[in-house]
Amino acid sequence: MSSGDKREEEDNDRFPDGALRLRNPHISEMEQDILYHLALGSGSHDLQEMFSDVRFVCMGGTPKRMEQFAYYIMDEIGYKLPAGTTLLDISFQSYRYSMYKVGPVLCFSHGMGIPSVGILLHEVIKLMYHAKCRDPIFFRLGTCGGIGIEGGNLVISESAVDGLLQPYLELPVLGQMQRRPAVLDRQLAHDLKNLRREDDPFTVTVGKTMCTYDFYEGQGRLDGAFCDYTEEDKLAFLRKIHAENVVNMEMESLCFAALCHHAGVRGAVVCVTLLNRLHGDQVSTPKEVLNKWQEYPQMLVARYIKKALGLPVAVPQRSHPQVVKCPRQAQMVRQQSASFE
Amino acid sequence: MSSGDKREEEDNDRFPDGALRLRNPHISEMEQDILYHLALGSGSHDLQEMFSDVRFVCMGGTPKRMEQFAYYIMDEIGYKLPAGTTLLDISFQSYRYSMYKVGPVLCFSHGMGIPSVGILLHEVIKLMYHAKCRDPIFFRLGTCGGIGIEGGNLVISESAVDGLLQPYLELPVLGQMQRRPAVLDRQLAHDLKNLRREDDPFTVTVGKTMCTYDFYEGQGRLDGAFCDYTEEDKLAFLRKIHAENVVNMEMESLCFAALCHHAGVRGAVVCVTLLNRLHGDQVSTPKEVLNKWQEYPQMLVARYIKKALGLPVAVPQRSHPQVVKCPRQAQMVRQQSASFE
Repeated sequence: MSSGDKREEEDNDRFPDGALRLRNPHISEMEQDILYHLALGSGSHDLQEMFSDVRFVCMGGTPKRMEQFAYYIMDEIGYKLPAGTTLLDISFQSYRYSMYKVGPVLCFSHGMGIPSVGILLHEVIKLMYHAKCRDPIFFRLGTCGGIGIEGGNLVISESAVDGLLQPYLELPVLGQMQRRPAVLDRQLAHDLKNLRREDDPFTVTVGKTMCTYDFYEGQGRLDGAFCDYTEEDKLAFLRKIHAENVVNMEMESLCFAALCHHAGVRGAVVCVTLLNRLHGDQVSTPKEVLNKWQEYPQMLVARYIKKALGLPVAVPQRSHPQVVKCPRQAQMVRQQSASFE
Repeated sequence: MSSGDKREEEDNDRFPDGALRLRNPHISEMEQDILYHLALGSGSHDLQEMFSDVRFVCMGGTPKRMEQFAYYIMDEIGYKLPAGTTLLDISFQSYRYSMYKVGPVLCFSHGMGIPSVGILLHEVIKLMYHAKCRDPIFFRLGTCGGIGIEGGNLVISESAVDGLLQPYLELPVLGQMQRRPAVLDRQLAHDLKNLRREDDPFTVTVGKTMCTYDFYEGQGRLDGAFCDYTEEDKLAFLRKIHAENVVNMEMESLCFAALCHHAGVRGAVVCVTLLNRLHGDQVSTPKEVLNKWQEYPQMLVARYIKKALGLPVAVPQRSHPQVVKCPRQAQMVRQQSASFE
């Protein structure tokens, strides 16, 4: 079994039209491929008909946030739904991930941690292959703890390291440790950073992300169920990794980077900091402020998508609900309708 | 920092009344403790008032399944809700885990994988501490792949190993690898196994569980997005671990066992097999059958809880909806009520 440290040239990742090749010879020999955790299958669904126009895959932790993002990106790119329709969670039957499609943008919730995002990535990469999607770009829109960065600012990962500062994803496969480099697309990170505007309420830092298998001890917090170290130990560790250019901590980037890179998919991780870990552990910012902050990664990624689609970056394509031509009159209609019993 | 391989005597885990001591000196010094992923806090909520009567904590993968379990255990133990009330997802504001309380039973969804179940366990253990719960028992009710066991049968883990057959949870903490033994309560596993009845449609096996960080390559499947090995490699590996007494594979037991053991909490992992991995990789059993199978761990755990509460084990305490005294007449009332417009 190869260590996965070496990968062939980029050219081998794609067919000439940009569709993904799959680094698994078994899939093409299977009668059907069930994407178990998405409640989709290559035998049961016409995946090409459903998904071949997808160009951007956006994922984040919770179903709620990604549903909000789906409606947000719909207005940003001016995607029209047929009258009398609404978005459907495509994977609602799986009860594991949520999945929304808005034209060329596919939105997923990935749950928490490497195993959860890893299962999703395996199935989404296979979905891209079955659907013959061309040159899809993957984004993770997340939250993180900043190291030396105050809450409410953005970090774009230039690469990911594990809790021992190792720049690869380790996974036991058939009893042997497999290592895959956690590399992200530098050009994509750079292009995203350049989409920050002067009047944005956040800064954007490109730096190294530490990805951990635990939120409490794994991130050196003092407030888990267990803690064998002191505040001084914690701060010494955080300062040490900060000196190694680690600017934030979260729980999915290592796997996201490693699997995207191995699949030959361009990927970016854009996270908003919820706090500066050099100053504390508990997230005590009010929910409304946190919700506001969680829109920042969405704003930056939406600008990238609009630019890639040739749309004006600065403004949304639609500022009021679809098919409404006069919001004021629409509100009056709503009020009057509600007042009749 | 201690390696965590040694733990003090059981006596030190508890106060004389059975309430948990916390192996973290920092918590008692904190002004308030926010259980961030549960949307609860020691300053904002009267956790003792809400949860001090909890004796059993049951967790499983999906919110849907655990909601079903909550209603199932309610009938099994005959727990009465006040008229005009229904269960509420206590953590609905967190959008991460679901949480239902049915008298002495607390039900959680834990998502997929070690990081996700780990965050939950940290916060539930702290919840038990804040609420002064006495001698709580933790159960994981899950699904798994059987190794040499056909689909639709139960496995109770006697211990857990990682993908390299190591019997401990490894986690980098402050840059050093921490190891915690993944030990489960043998008496509890034994007591659960003895609750199988002759007429049950499933067998019950007590054995070693391999817990992995990935569902595809991590479990030696051929049907992930990537695969560098052959079917023969896979089968050789599965046969090798089977010879080492591994009878099933899943993705949470290592962390569940290690954190329960470290906290001095009795814990059991009861999983139903969805397939025999010696015969295949894809889960192609019809959804209805899978749903039926997922009730089996619930049945066994419900019997344990009933027995512990001094209730008759063989029958549910209630076979029709609460406050209904005649189901036939209740159905007539429902039908007539629905037919009036």
